[in-house]
Amino acid sequence: MSGEDAAPAQQQNAVDQKQETKPAEEPKTEPPKTEPAPASGAAEAAASPAAATEKVPEEEAFTYRALVLTGYGGYDKVKLQVKKGKPTLKAGEIQVRVKACGLNFADLMARQGLYDRMPSPPVTPGMECSGVVEAVGEEVTDRKVGDKVMVLSRFGLWQEVVVVPASHTFLIPEGMSFEDAAALPVNYITAYMMLFDFGNLRPNQSILVHAAAGGVGIAATQLCKTVKDVTVFGTASASKHETISQGGVTHPIDYRTKDYVEEVRKISPKGLDIILDPLGGSDTHKAYNLLKPMGKLITYGTANMLAGQKKNLLAVAKNWYHQFSIHTLSLIQGNKSVCGFHLGYLEGEMELITQAMDSILDLYKQGKVKPHIDSTWHLEQVGDAMRKMQERNNIGKVILTTEPMPEEEKKEEPKKEDKKEEKKKDDKKKDDGKKKDDGKKEEKKDDKKKEEPKKEEKKEEEPKKEEAKKEEK
Amino acid sequence: MSGEDAAPAQQQNAVDQKQETKPAEEPKTEPPKTEPAPASGAAEAAASPAAATEKVPEEEAFTYRALVLTGYGGYDKVKLQVKKGKPTLKAGEIQVRVKACGLNFADLMARQGLYDRMPSPPVTPGMECSGVVEAVGEEVTDRKVGDKVMVLSRFGLWQEVVVVPASHTFLIPEGMSFEDAAALPVNYITAYMMLFDFGNLRPNQSILVHAAAGGVGIAATQLCKTVKDVTVFGTASASKHETISQGGVTHPIDYRTKDYVEEVRKISPKGLDIILDPLGGSDTHKAYNLLKPMGKLITYGTANMLAGQKKNLLAVAKNWYHQFSIHTLSLIQGNKSVCGFHLGYLEGEMELITQAMDSILDLYKQGKVKPHIDSTWHLEQVGDAMRKMQERNNIGKVILTTEPMPEEEKKEEPKKEDKKEEKKKDDKKKDDGKKKDDGKKEEKKDDKKKEEPKKEEKKEEEPKKEEAKKEEK
Repeated sequence: MSGEDAAPAQQQNAVDQKQETKPAEEPKTEPPKTEPAPASGAAEAAASPAAATEKVPEEEAFTYRALVLTGYGGYDKVKLQVKKGKPTLKAGEIQVRVKACGLNFADLMARQGLYDRMPSPPVTPGMECSGVVEAVGEEVTDRKVGDKVMVLSRFGLWQEVVVVPASHTFLIPEGMSFEDAAALPVNYITAYMMLFDFGNLRPNQSILVHAAAGGVGIAATQLCKTVKDVTVFGTASASKHETISQGGVTHPIDYRTKDYVEEVRKISPKGLDIILDPLGGSDTHKAYNLLKPMGKLITYGTANMLAGQKKNLLAVAKNWYHQFSIHTLSLIQGNKSVCGFHLGYLEGEMELITQAMDSILDLYKQGKVKPHIDSTWHLEQVGDAMRKMQERNNIGKVILTTEPMPEEEKKEEPKKEDKKEEKKKDDKKKDDGKKKDDGKKEEKKDDKKKEEPKKEEKKEEEPKKEEAKKEEK
Repeated sequence: MSGEDAAPAQQQNAVDQKQETKPAEEPKTEPPKTEPAPASGAAEAAASPAAATEKVPEEEAFTYRALVLTGYGGYDKVKLQVKKGKPTLKAGEIQVRVKACGLNFADLMARQGLYDRMPSPPVTPGMECSGVVEAVGEEVTDRKVGDKVMVLSRFGLWQEVVVVPASHTFLIPEGMSFEDAAALPVNYITAYMMLFDFGNLRPNQSILVHAAAGGVGIAATQLCKTVKDVTVFGTASASKHETISQGGVTHPIDYRTKDYVEEVRKISPKGLDIILDPLGGSDTHKAYNLLKPMGKLITYGTANMLAGQKKNLLAVAKNWYHQFSIHTLSLIQGNKSVCGFHLGYLEGEMELITQAMDSILDLYKQGKVKPHIDSTWHLEQVGDAMRKMQERNNIGKVILTTEPMPEEEKKEEPKKEDKKEEKKKDDKKKDDGKKKDDGKKEEKKDDKKKEEPKKEEKKEEEPKKEEAKKEEK
């Protein structure tokens, strides 16, 4: 399909799906409004491109907002900027108008310079997003303008417009909101491949899920529940236990007040069949010792390295020092398996990833899995969004939306930031169950947002039916 | 069931199954005959118990021949002796009259003092055997006198009579010879659990099987063929390629003349999904690098340590020096899995093992797997049997039979031994495809033996039908 073909199709789509394409038009007129909107001190960086495009006619300048990591460090290093120039599509690529983006631990690591899969700053972070196809390159046969898609990429998705290989996208099933679609790829593919490829999870087995209230934790718990009689031990702070229990965790463990190894041994003296370890360091050693014969330890991160907003050399060194290393003779004598997983290093394996995604979407359609959204934030609020995740205050997925931020919230923003800076130290001492005032305000706003997509979905039922049929093929 | 109940049942059985119980009666009268039979220089050790029992009435003295590792070292350290005294059965145990025993690499390692799962000498080696139940202890409900069983144990099965927990035995399916039954447990359970538990083998995957003509190699190849479109790379010396190709190896590789890594890369440039590694040392490193993303390396031995008849300290040190050790960060970045397996360390997990065995026996009944017997040897010939395996001259399983050795063969034995001692060095230089004269003679004898069990099976068809019904339950 040539670019010429794509354009009319896009317009056609704009007529059919008013709700959907509305945001796709807005950004073009919006940048002048946002200037100097980027609230987190990125004004100077964003000002020049935004100013440059201010007076240019709509048809000649293609601009879109993008989050850019400007240097390694704290939350304020990710700034909202305006990029300009219509991207060109190579063969096999599609252009997507982004609606929502997912936050992942790798993004937090990357900000501190601890993730080698992202190029040096300046660079746009973001491994997953959802949106609508607005142009398709040559040789793309399985995506068309107007398709609602999820996107997976090594980086670069936290912006309003992305150009990606069509093979890195998945059609969003009927009834799934853009927020859910942005929450799904990284967490569910990670959990799925760990449990069903490396883990080979089978009925009656027992498993330890660390950070069971996190994105991967909730996905893993839901996937465990698709297998008969699996016992899930899940660590989380006490305030999150009710939620994770409802989600399927059999034995919630408050890792802050109890030794999780002891707690597991009380119930399962012989140990566990599978342990998912996102922590690294000394926790990997504990996990290894907690495995049953034929048990599988699957390590997929080094969250223990993240201590504070900026790179903490002591935490990094400690993690390296305690890094788990294993001899084959020990594995043989223990009949154990140690696996490492990270989706960021698996980009060449889209066939495997697509197989996993197909299975996940089947489970979604059967109502067996559904992302749990913790909160949704505007691009301007990315710092707060990252803080919420890094301080482990989230239950489920933290999402960014590309929807424009209402003017009144923007005006409040600087005040909020000041308050937060003052409060930061106090907050750390508080139990994560107690929300800060700002947090509450934001959550109410999030609730509103959560309702919106549902309304939208009803309106769009008819065009979606067509898509669903395609997927069933 | 008390011991009193067991005795008449045993006699009953002796009447019903003449063919089968014949060997069970023979050993009682045989030891005097065998003295000083043990051909491998064990006469002095065997003589005293044998002599002691010579004049004792059959009912008062219960004697049986047993192979005993008398000290660490060469082939001659395993001596044929006569043990006396009727074993007492604890609750849950059964007494089995052994028909055939399997040789395993761990037995060879144990002889050199390289296997820590066997007690210090003097001790009877042997991890697997087949035979007929001749007494059952209290609380045994699922085995009865006359049942034909396979036995799995940490050690101690290379003798005519064994007492083992009933839970460590498996009923032999109808139509399976005692030789096949002795060849099956260790190799097939090992291959099955590696491929389907740790390996999670699925259609279209590719796998490297080292020593593809060995016991585990043949079992693994057959099991791979039960999964659709699995590509099997198998290493073996050229003379064995025809056999392993017929057995299901897609790409045989002569590891003696070619670099197997290069050969695999030519056909499968991205690497492999699963690698079974019985070698250890530097081959484990090669295997790790040859894995695809999401690939699984399953190491299950250190055959590279075995260099020569006696412990080779250089080989052992080299193996330790090159022992594979892996950091979790490397696993994460590679998306790889490293597993260790050894059935000898899994004795506490009879539930898992029995599940695997049930699946294997189902496949056997469907005709999808069948042990390949390389050769069968008398207990007196255990040294030759071990040599054949250690020098990699076998294709498939090396088996010991408890059948008495014909007198004429015994008389020849010392001569053979002398010849072999002289020939040993020459043999090593020769290609393993060329058999020595003695080897040929023995093989002819083996062929005869192979035919015998078949005849026996036909005769026993009626009693077996009853057993089969039980198994179907």
